[in-house]
Amino acid sequence: MKPSPIISLTTDFGSKDWFVGTMKGVILGINPSALPVDICHEIAPGDIRAGAFTLAASCRFFPSGSVHLAVIDPGVGSARGMIAVKTADYVFVGPDNGVLSWALRQERIQSLHSLENKTYFLDGLSQTFHGRDIFAPVAAHLTRGIPIEDLGPRRKDFTRIAWPRLRRHRGGIQGEVVYVDRFGNAITNLDAGSVSTRTQSGAQVVVNNKWICPLAACYSAVPAGAAVAVLGSSGFLEIAINSGSAAMQFGIRPGDAVNLR
Amino acid sequence: MKPSPIISLTTDFGSKDWFVGTMKGVILGINPSALPVDICHEIAPGDIRAGAFTLAASCRFFPSGSVHLAVIDPGVGSARGMIAVKTADYVFVGPDNGVLSWALRQERIQSLHSLENKTYFLDGLSQTFHGRDIFAPVAAHLTRGIPIEDLGPRRKDFTRIAWPRLRRHRGGIQGEVVYVDRFGNAITNLDAGSVSTRTQSGAQVVVNNKWICPLAACYSAVPAGAAVAVLGSSGFLEIAINSGSAAMQFGIRPGDAVNLR
Amino acid sequence: MKPSPIISLTTDFGSKDWFVGTMKGVILGINPSALPVDICHEIAPGDIRAGAFTLAASCRFFPSGSVHLAVIDPGVGSARGMIAVKTADYVFVGPDNGVLSWALRQERIQSLHSLENKTYFLDGLSQTFHGRDIFAPVAAHLTRGIPIEDLGPRRKDFTRIAWPRLRRHRGGIQGEVVYVDRFGNAITNLDAGSVSTRTQSGAQVVVNNKWICPLAACYSAVPAGAAVAVLGSSGFLEIAINSGSAAMQFGIRPGDAVNLR
Repeated sequence: MKPSPIISLTTDFGSKDWFVGTMKGVILGINPSALPVDICHEIAPGDIRAGAFTLAASCRFFPSGSVHLAVIDPGVGSARGMIAVKTADYVFVGPDNGVLSWALRQERIQSLHSLENKTYFLDGLSQTFHGRDIFAPVAAHLTRGIPIEDLGPRRKDFTRIAWPRLRRHRGGIQGEVVYVDRFGNAITNLDAGSVSTRTQSGAQVVVNNKWICPLAACYSAVPAGAAVAVLGSSGFLEIAINSGSAAMQFGIRPGDAVNLR
Repeated sequence: MKPSPIISLTTDFGSKDWFVGTMKGVILGINPSALPVDICHEIAPGDIRAGAFTLAASCRFFPSGSVHLAVIDPGVGSARGMIAVKTADYVFVGPDNGVLSWALRQERIQSLHSLENKTYFLDGLSQTFHGRDIFAPVAAHLTRGIPIEDLGPRRKDFTRIAWPRLRRHRGGIQGEVVYVDRFGNAITNLDAGSVSTRTQSGAQVVVNNKWICPLAACYSAVPAGAAVAVLGSSGFLEIAINSGSAAMQFGIRPGDAVNLR
Repeated sequence: MKPSPIISLTTDFGSKDWFVGTMKGVILGINPSALPVDICHEIAPGDIRAGAFTLAASCRFFPSGSVHLAVIDPGVGSARGMIAVKTADYVFVGPDNGVLSWALRQERIQSLHSLENKTYFLDGLSQTFHGRDIFAPVAAHLTRGIPIEDLGPRRKDFTRIAWPRLRRHRGGIQGEVVYVDRFGNAITNLDAGSVSTRTQSGAQVVVNNKWICPLAACYSAVPAGAAVAVLGSSGFLEIAINSGSAAMQFGIRPGDAVNLR
C-alpha cells in the first residue's frame, strides 16, 4: 500500500457550523499536501449505525492508501477508546464505538492501535471536539507517512455493531431495512447473492408484510409513482418508488422487515 | 483549449448520503491530480430544469479546459443516452435528458459523442448509480487527456429543454420566473438586453399581474422589506425583497408571469 | 508570514444554488494552485453576528498565511465599504459591516485597506454578487502574492460589532448566549478565564434564570437527556444536553442570559 494524500471525512458535524472546515484547516496545517475529501457530514447527531453504513458503502471506491476518518462520537471526552486500523488498502481512524466496524467487515485487518500518543494531538486539547483536536491531526500525520505503531499501543480487538442477519424461511429470505437515503430509497441487508438466485423466477419483495413490489433492474423499469425493488449500487436490495420516495409513501424506517419470496 | 484538472459537479445527490464523496473517490483513483469542484448537489431530485439553469449560470466562470459534469438522471439504468459535448472552452458530460442544454445555448459546440466505451466505465457497473460508475470515471479520464472520440460514436444531436420565450406586447415584454434561489429571489428569463432599454424610463415590473416593484440597481436600493427588481448576477432580471424572500412573500414559483413595462 | 494557497470561505450563500461553486471557479481561474476550503455557507441570510462568530471560532486553526474570506453581505451593491486586513498570521477579506470584527479581536492588525482597485475585480461587475465578482478574485490574487497595498487606499478603521460584555455580580458572573450550533448547544461569551476559577467549587450555571445545570468536563459526564455546562472547543462555556438539544428543550436563543455562580 503506497501512501496517499487523501483523507475521507464522514461525520455528524453537519454544514451549519465551522466544525468540518476547522478540521480541514488543522489537516492542512500539518500536511499542506493532504487532500481532505468529504464523504458525508449530515449523519444524524450520534447515529453510529448510519455512519457505519455510509462508510461501508463508500470506502472501497477510494484509491488504495487513503485514510478514512469517521467521527460520529457521542461519547467525546469520556473514556471511550479511539483507534486506527490498518487494512490491506486503507487506514481507518475513529472512535471505538462501532462506527468503523461495518466498513471493516469487508477488509483484511493488518494492525489495530489505540490513539494515545499526544505528540500527534493538537496542543490545548478540548473535551468536546476531538474531531479537530485528535482525529484530524492523527489522520494528517498518517498522510505524512508516520507508522501506525507510533500512534499508541497495539490492541487486540475493537467494538463491533452487529450486522443484521438474514433469516431463511419456507419460500424466501427475510431481511430488514438498514438505511434510508435522500431519495427515500430503503436499502436492506439482502445482498447480491440472496437476490440474484431469485430474479429469474418472478420473485416478489414484501415490505412490512404489507407492501408488495416487483424485482427489476432499474428504477424506471416501472411507471413513475410505482414501487420497485432493485439491486442497488451498494450491493444490496433497495425498495424504491420511481420518481418518488418509498420511505415517505410506505413510512419505511431502518429495522422494518423485508421479505424476498 | 488546454486541459485542466478541474471537474465541476452538479447533481441532485444531496449531502445526506455518500454519493458525491464516492464519485470524488472514483475520480481521484483514476486521476490523482484531478480537482473536483462542487457547483451544487441540492437540485431537487430529478429536477432537470433546475439543474440546467444551475449549470448555465455557473459554467462560464470556470477556467477554460474544465470538464463540467451534471448528473440529474431520473432515467438512470434505462435506455436513455449519455453524452460528452466538447465546446470551445469546456467538455460537458451528463445524461442526454436536457440537463446540459441551457449551458450549451451559450457555447460553440465542436463535437458530440455518446458514452458507450466501457473501457472508461467502472467494472461491475450498477444500474442505479451511473454518477459513480460511468460519469465520474469518464470525466476523470477526460482530465487525463483522452480524446473525446474515444468515449463512443459521434452523434448529430442531443436533447434540448426549450428555453421559455419572451413575448413582446403593447408597452412591454412578458417573461416568466425560471428559478428561485435560496434567498427567495425569483430569477426570470428577461435578459440584460430587454431590461437595459427600459431602466431609464421609470419602468415597472409586475409579477403574476398583481405585485408591482420598481427596477433598481441593487437590493438595498429599496428599504428593508420592500420589493425590487434588479438585473441579477446571472444576467437576468430577478424579483427580490431587500432582506426578505420574494418567493415566500409573493408565493412566486417557476413559470409565474413577469411583465416589464 | 509566508504566503499559502489556502482561501477559507465563510458565507450565507447556502448549498442550494451555484454561488459557492462559482466563486471557486473564479478563484481557480485566477490562481490554479489556490486551495479554497469551506468553513461554512449555511449562515442564515444576512446574519452578520453568526458569520462573525463562525469565523472567530475557526480562523486560528488554519495555517499561517491563509486568506480568510467572509461574505455575509446584505448591503451588496450599496456604498458599504469592502476591506482587506493583514494580521500577523492571515489576511481577512470581506465587506466592512462587522463580519470580520470578532475574528480580528484575537489578531494583531498590521494593515488595513479598502478594496477599490478594479484591476483585481472581474470584468462586467454585477451589483448583486460581489462574492463572485470582487471578493473571490481579490482573495485569489492575494494567494498569488500581490501586496495588500495594491488593493486600494489605506484605511484607519473598520466596522466593529460589540462583543457582549460579562457582568460581575455578587456571587457570580452573567453572560449571554452568542451562538447555537447544529447539536443545539448554546455557546456563551463566558470564557475559559471566567469558568476555570469556578469549576472547583460546585459551581452552577443558570440559563434564563430558570434552567440550572452543573459544570462538567464533557457532555457525557451527565446521563443521556440531562443538561450540562461544559467549557467548549471554542473556548467558551456552552449549555448542552447529553445526546439531546439544549436549544430545543430549553428554547434557548442568542441573547439569553446565562449566570455562572
